Amino acid sequence: MKKMWEGRFSEVSAKLLEEFNASIGFDKNLFEQDIKGSKAHAKMLGAQGIIGKDESEKIIDGLDRVLDEIRRGEFEFKIEDEDIHMSVEKRLSEIIGKELGGRLHTARSRNDQVALDFRLYVLEKNQEILKKVKELVATLTSLSSKHLDTLMPGFTHLQHAQPVSLAYHLMAYAFMFKRDFERFASSYERNNLSPLGSAALAGTPHKIDREMVARELGFAGVTQNAMDSVSDRDFALEILFNISVLMMHASRLCEELIIWSSSEFGFVSISDAYSTGSSIMPQKKNPDVAELIRGKTGRVNGNLIALLTTMKGLPLAYNKDMQEDKEGVFDSVATALASVEILNEMIKTAKFNKENMLSATKRGHLSATDLADYLVREKNVAFREAHFITGKAVAKAESLGVDLSELDGEQLRSVDENLDENAVKFLDLNASKEARTSKGGTANVSVKAQIDDIKAWLEVLK
Amino acid sequence: MKKMWEGRFSEVSAKLLEEFNASIGFDKNLFEQDIKGSKAHAKMLGAQGIIGKDESEKIIDGLDRVLDEIRRGEFEFKIEDEDIHMSVEKRLSEIIGKELGGRLHTARSRNDQVALDFRLYVLEKNQEILKKVKELVATLTSLSSKHLDTLMPGFTHLQHAQPVSLAYHLMAYAFMFKRDFERFASSYERNNLSPLGSAALAGTPHKIDREMVARELGFAGVTQNAMDSVSDRDFALEILFNISVLMMHASRLCEELIIWSSSEFGFVSISDAYSTGSSIMPQKKNPDVAELIRGKTGRVNGNLIALLTTMKGLPLAYNKDMQEDKEGVFDSVATALASVEILNEMIKTAKFNKENMLSATKRGHLSATDLADYLVREKNVAFREAHFITGKAVAKAESLGVDLSELDGEQLRSVDENLDENAVKFLDLNASKEARTSKGGTANVSVKAQIDDIKAWLEVLK
Amino acid sequence: MKKMWEGRFSEVSAKLLEEFNASIGFDKNLFEQDIKGSKAHAKMLGAQGIIGKDESEKIIDGLDRVLDEIRRGEFEFKIEDEDIHMSVEKRLSEIIGKELGGRLHTARSRNDQVALDFRLYVLEKNQEILKKVKELVATLTSLSSKHLDTLMPGFTHLQHAQPVSLAYHLMAYAFMFKRDFERFASSYERNNLSPLGSAALAGTPHKIDREMVARELGFAGVTQNAMDSVSDRDFALEILFNISVLMMHASRLCEELIIWSSSEFGFVSISDAYSTGSSIMPQKKNPDVAELIRGKTGRVNGNLIALLTTMKGLPLAYNKDMQEDKEGVFDSVATALASVEILNEMIKTAKFNKENMLSATKRGHLSATDLADYLVREKNVAFREAHFITGKAVAKAESLGVDLSELDGEQLRSVDENLDENAVKFLDLNASKEARTSKGGTANVSVKAQIDDIKAWLEVLK
Amino acid sequence: MKKMWEGRFSEVSAKLLEEFNASIGFDKNLFEQDIKGSKAHAKMLGAQGIIGKDESEKIIDGLDRVLDEIRRGEFEFKIEDEDIHMSVEKRLSEIIGKELGGRLHTARSRNDQVALDFRLYVLEKNQEILKKVKELVATLTSLSSKHLDTLMPGFTHLQHAQPVSLAYHLMAYAFMFKRDFERFASSYERNNLSPLGSAALAGTPHKIDREMVARELGFAGVTQNAMDSVSDRDFALEILFNISVLMMHASRLCEELIIWSSSEFGFVSISDAYSTGSSIMPQKKNPDVAELIRGKTGRVNGNLIALLTTMKGLPLAYNKDMQEDKEGVFDSVATALASVEILNEMIKTAKFNKENMLSATKRGHLSATDLADYLVREKNVAFREAHFITGKAVAKAESLGVDLSELDGEQLRSVDENLDENAVKFLDLNASKEARTSKGGTANVSVKAQIDDIKAWLEVLK
Repeated sequence: MKKMWEGRFSEVSAKLLEEFNASIGFDKNLFEQDIKGSKAHAKMLGAQGIIGKDESEKIIDGLDRVLDEIRRGEFEFKIEDEDIHMSVEKRLSEIIGKELGGRLHTARSRNDQVALDFRLYVLEKNQEILKKVKELVATLTSLSSKHLDTLMPGFTHLQHAQPVSLAYHLMAYAFMFKRDFERFASSYERNNLSPLGSAALAGTPHKIDREMVARELGFAGVTQNAMDSVSDRDFALEILFNISVLMMHASRLCEELIIWSSSEFGFVSISDAYSTGSSIMPQKKNPDVAELIRGKTGRVNGNLIALLTTMKGLPLAYNKDMQEDKEGVFDSVATALASVEILNEMIKTAKFNKENMLSATKRGHLSATDLADYLVREKNVAFREAHFITGKAVAKAESLGVDLSELDGEQLRSVDENLDENAVKFLDLNASKEARTSKGGTANVSVKAQIDDIKAWLEVLK
Repeated sequence: MKKMWEGRFSEVSAKLLEEFNASIGFDKNLFEQDIKGSKAHAKMLGAQGIIGKDESEKIIDGLDRVLDEIRRGEFEFKIEDEDIHMSVEKRLSEIIGKELGGRLHTARSRNDQVALDFRLYVLEKNQEILKKVKELVATLTSLSSKHLDTLMPGFTHLQHAQPVSLAYHLMAYAFMFKRDFERFASSYERNNLSPLGSAALAGTPHKIDREMVARELGFAGVTQNAMDSVSDRDFALEILFNISVLMMHASRLCEELIIWSSSEFGFVSISDAYSTGSSIMPQKKNPDVAELIRGKTGRVNGNLIALLTTMKGLPLAYNKDMQEDKEGVFDSVATALASVEILNEMIKTAKFNKENMLSATKRGHLSATDLADYLVREKNVAFREAHFITGKAVAKAESLGVDLSELDGEQLRSVDENLDENAVKFLDLNASKEARTSKGGTANVSVKAQIDDIKAWLEVLK
Repeated sequence: MKKMWEGRFSEVSAKLLEEFNASIGFDKNLFEQDIKGSKAHAKMLGAQGIIGKDESEKIIDGLDRVLDEIRRGEFEFKIEDEDIHMSVEKRLSEIIGKELGGRLHTARSRNDQVALDFRLYVLEKNQEILKKVKELVATLTSLSSKHLDTLMPGFTHLQHAQPVSLAYHLMAYAFMFKRDFERFASSYERNNLSPLGSAALAGTPHKIDREMVARELGFAGVTQNAMDSVSDRDFALEILFNISVLMMHASRLCEELIIWSSSEFGFVSISDAYSTGSSIMPQKKNPDVAELIRGKTGRVNGNLIALLTTMKGLPLAYNKDMQEDKEGVFDSVATALASVEILNEMIKTAKFNKENMLSATKRGHLSATDLADYLVREKNVAFREAHFITGKAVAKAESLGVDLSELDGEQLRSVDENLDENAVKFLDLNASKEARTSKGGTANVSVKAQIDDIKAWLEVLK
Repeated sequence: MKKMWEGRFSEVSAKLLEEFNASIGFDKNLFEQDIKGSKAHAKMLGAQGIIGKDESEKIIDGLDRVLDEIRRGEFEFKIEDEDIHMSVEKRLSEIIGKELGGRLHTARSRNDQVALDFRLYVLEKNQEILKKVKELVATLTSLSSKHLDTLMPGFTHLQHAQPVSLAYHLMAYAFMFKRDFERFASSYERNNLSPLGSAALAGTPHKIDREMVARELGFAGVTQNAMDSVSDRDFALEILFNISVLMMHASRLCEELIIWSSSEFGFVSISDAYSTGSSIMPQKKNPDVAELIRGKTGRVNGNLIALLTTMKGLPLAYNKDMQEDKEGVFDSVATALASVEILNEMIKTAKFNKENMLSATKRGHLSATDLADYLVREKNVAFREAHFITGKAVAKAESLGVDLSELDGEQLRSVDENLDENAVKFLDLNASKEARTSKGGTANVSVKAQIDDIKAWLEVLK
């Protein structure tokens, strides 16, 4: 009786175990890279005389057929084939025969094969992300050119601080995403090396030509120590980290879009496509997409910490723990690509409410600092005294129920004799913005320079 | 009665609050950077005529005096001064007078000042870490030159896989740490830009010269958007991530040292300085230091996730949340510097037990693959058949209670006629190692090339 | 020449190494627990006749003297004493003699001693946190009783959704923090077991009485397997996790306080003590403390992941990696205690601006759902049709520039004949709130029940 | 031309956006819970007279039909249905008509519906995990009863420390997993409350009976504040954390199985089903499954940190960010269930090599402590002197090339006169183990008590 139960249990367990061990459920995503890599390897084996030229060609033709079948969805991945390498090899052997199919694996091991496939994938995705990030920078920059004169409050601590232009605020994000671009680009350069030919962990006695394979696959070179090459996942950690920072930046922009979409702020109206409404409250628009992007910061951070944890304390060389490296990367990559593309479109189609921004700028006496600066600079008033006088001017404005920027010359003079006609123009919110001409400042002349810099950079990238 | 209690409660709370708000407890570490930055700023203010030349000089002299006092430990940091900037400024004002002391803050804000100090710190620490990592790579490489002929089992899954040299195994780590070096170096280049002059968030109306300040401080240039510059902490995230990967690599090496120190392995004996013993079990040595380094992987991962979490969803520009950026970086930097230096010394002074390594290599029939390869390559036996024959040879060895590599010609021949005299030399463990001459392989010729490459790289860095 | 350099290097390293190994820098915080534990152990040793009664008493007296010295700050912790256990034991031996001092360590090891100290600490801090969290719940509940009639918009997606009371909104947090309380309380119960007597890893041959020690120290019992007891850090992970959730809740409340403090929302004015101002912009108040609490979510998450990472894959029993368990816990505990206490005070002293909340409630036609419900329930209009009619009523309000809740009977009737006089009262925002009487709803009757439940719970805890 | 491109782009984006927004891809896993919840809701609506009894019954019948279709795989989930709630409702409406289908949503919102579904899921999975963990504890305990006399070295720092039994070592894990059980059980109790009836965020004006729904669904009660209930994800964080600790424990056990499987240790042989071999190296067995479980610690930690990050700083009540809550929980739950089941089977079928364990115990003079203890206890030798004598005895053994435990009376006496015939029995490794009879110790009497405690506990759970 007990035996029967054990019997059943073991059967269930066997299936569970097969699934537990198998990576085919996710590494099938690597079929393009796997076949591309195998073709390059077969070509090299032929060129080096390790297998016959004709054998090499037949293998390559066979691989092309497998590729075609997979692309057309005619290929069924089976859990019992365990991983993408076995799946492809098995089908290849059906097509060109077992003997020849088996020869493809000469001078190669699953350890360096998976290292190759995964690296190719990561490098390609780096390139795709670079493209999307570049487009986002272009959008922000292009939008900025249209909003040089859109006045809004610059915030610190979510409190009004100084008048800035919307262009300037958007350019802050352009520069964040430009740095993201640079990180992905740098990671690409650093990791653009082929691990193939590392074999199981110690290289191979066969007379292979690793550089030839690398050239075929578009790598800039080859890795230098096989034991390291089969157990290195730095390239995967790098893309995970770069995505975490990218999504962190996106989360900040989305947080602002959400706050700005509130009825209290009313700075922006997100396009219907990127929000959900209510059938009876037509003015209501939930910024769902911005919230989702913000929320996805969690998952990409999770994927990063997951791989860092998995790699901790692993002895050399390959350990099965490392099979855990892929799903998180696939997930972070998909998240980043979709989020950046959607964010880009959402920004493009958002309507900024200039009037609300302007009237907000008039709350908080944002030119107070300018007035104090004026007193110090032009009237030679001591800093402390200048602050005292400005405080009185603000109090005057408050008592009149207006913003400091709305005081006229006479009202100003009644506060202090140093506040003459000239002072009025320093109260002007636009003048305040335009005064900040230092490099990196919010004056149009500075922001235009920022825009030009980015445009020049984008031009070079083309 | 209730009131009294409330009264007391509020007092306690006030002190707690002061401590909660203050950053002086940790940002005092930035005093060198803070004063260095202020001196450059004062010099520029003088050069640009924003303050008088003599004022500029007096400020600089005053700052030098403050610096001197702090360095000599004569300066008491007080919680009520809140942060390093206030502490220095207050002391400066005591020395050169409040009026003049206050002028230093012209065209500057605490937001760009702290951004500058922290960035200077991170860049300097990048350089220190680069130095330590380079030393570690040099040690591993130098040690490798001595162990080209030290045979050991190459492991996968902690199982014996193929014979390799200890040199080869150590070089795997040399290449890991070289990549770490490259990441820190790349991050340094990318972030070597001065944020000073960004002011609170929007630049300044003063006619400052940001490039001059940048030059003074050794930066390669200036940042381009002030709002971004006061709220950017990418440079801090980068050093945190680079340290996490570095420590992950260190944790792998330490895991191996710990396992190799077990009485079962006995591959290595860690120097007394890096282990603790027992008064009555003289042979017992706990690899405490290696365990600590491995354990510290946790804290550096924690610091990374902490800052990523803190930065998530922060609207522009500066928010007080960002005060949380420093302690984690200080901790990770100290951890990395100490760990790498100590690891370096521990490796230098470790004794590798060649005999135990060699006898381990003789367990597991590690030349089985070589024998099968021989049959395929030289005897034109089909792969499947070659495996079958090799399996029989292994069985023979097992039955004789020896390792496959210890079979002689006659014993071999009794297994299969294809196993002739020539086959014997492929069974030899050293021959197996020496056969793997592919680029990146474990043969001495390949490992020497790896050592030479690293040495050339180290030479260039000097 | 080279030698000299090496010599110098090694000296620096020795000091670094000492610091690296030592835990005294942080575990000195455990002096109360360490001495308390030692006293209980000494008492038991005496009672069991393992040492003499008089020896036991002398040891206890000596320990009391050491405790007194530390409390009065007369004791200097030295790095060379390595950890708190050694520091205390060494001083004890100075006081009562080496022979007797050494006897304290009978039937005990540093492994179970540190497990005891740390567990005592965590349990005590659990209790302190419970007290603070309870106070915060009490404050929120008490505040709620005053704001049953304070109308405000209930938000989803930061968009106005339905009218609620501020009391109701605050009670949501009361229930979050109550769950936090329950988690800490549950963890306390689960972990309230003494590990002392586990010795190094295998128990001891001495005839100890672990239950007696446990009773002395206030534990509910003893742990059951010594090997587990010296390597278990679940209790530490639990407090770290419970703090992470607690701080996550605090971060949500702080996020709301920050948004509500913006000039756009103007729902709340945080007391000066918990915000920083500007000398010339008197209306400006940066919600620094709320931002800091929100930002500290990062560090507590970091501490949690740090210990989870450190513990991953450690073989039994004690490993030095585990020395990394304390700093993160100390930091999270201090963060939680300060944050909750300060948040409590900040909430108590905040001024809620009822007028702004009320006028915000009038934006967004928040009673649209109520109108549609009315048509369905009272007029038997099909759902779809009801929505259509409501949409028209909203359009009418929009065209008149008023909120739906401000339409009168005549205006309503002009939209649709089903919208009779009775409908008007369903448009009323307060009526809308008061209609939601379901358990857990926002109607006063429901919120009062919530308040009563919490008050009863608080009463029981006393 | 440009327009056309934009057109195409937008179309691609529309599909991407639909996928980005939709949760149906993963929340379809909740179909059982969704329909179960809807049936209980419909029943209550009927019982309360909110809809007709017959309407209620028709809805329930319709829901049963949908459930049946989904279970039989006849139901196609479509991306355009967005989520599981819409999918089910749409199909229900096809079956019973739109008018009636729509009535099911009376007094309910997607916010409380998803809160219900997800909570039901988490509670059910808690129960499944409890079952698996209990089985694992039972296996470890049962195995322990067979290994009371299997002597092995107890390790600290992966160094031999004291002789223990394998039973004792395994029981350490039994107690870890028992604590895991208690955490899951405690979380279940704490969260076993129904959120249904919270509606969108403020309750509902309908006369619902939340307790009835709760009873129908097996909850112990209802939640108390609707705003909290729709935005609370503590229950999800708890299961994520509990899984992280569980997997951490599993990673420790797996680390030991991996190390013990090495040819150097040779303590255990994992069954073929849980390892992979080599066709030509028959003795080679890679402990793949143990490595995978260890590696999966990463992903569950990642899932925990992901949700903590996502929830940080979210204002009340529901935000779309929270849609990110499910995938990580699904993944961690599946990981935990599979890992524990497989670990259980792997342990059951593992072969422990008693001889290797025994001979390892004889390395390291593990009874040195016992000898010193003997001198102190029986011969009244001072501690320091006892250590000195023991050190000499160890040196004697080393010089003879034997373990301390192998010295005979004569050899002992030649070291010191205090080492008489009686001392010999304290050198015996088994005697050393058997001496540690303290509660929680390794002596059989203690371990048997541990086993009995666990068995009694398991009995109660049945």
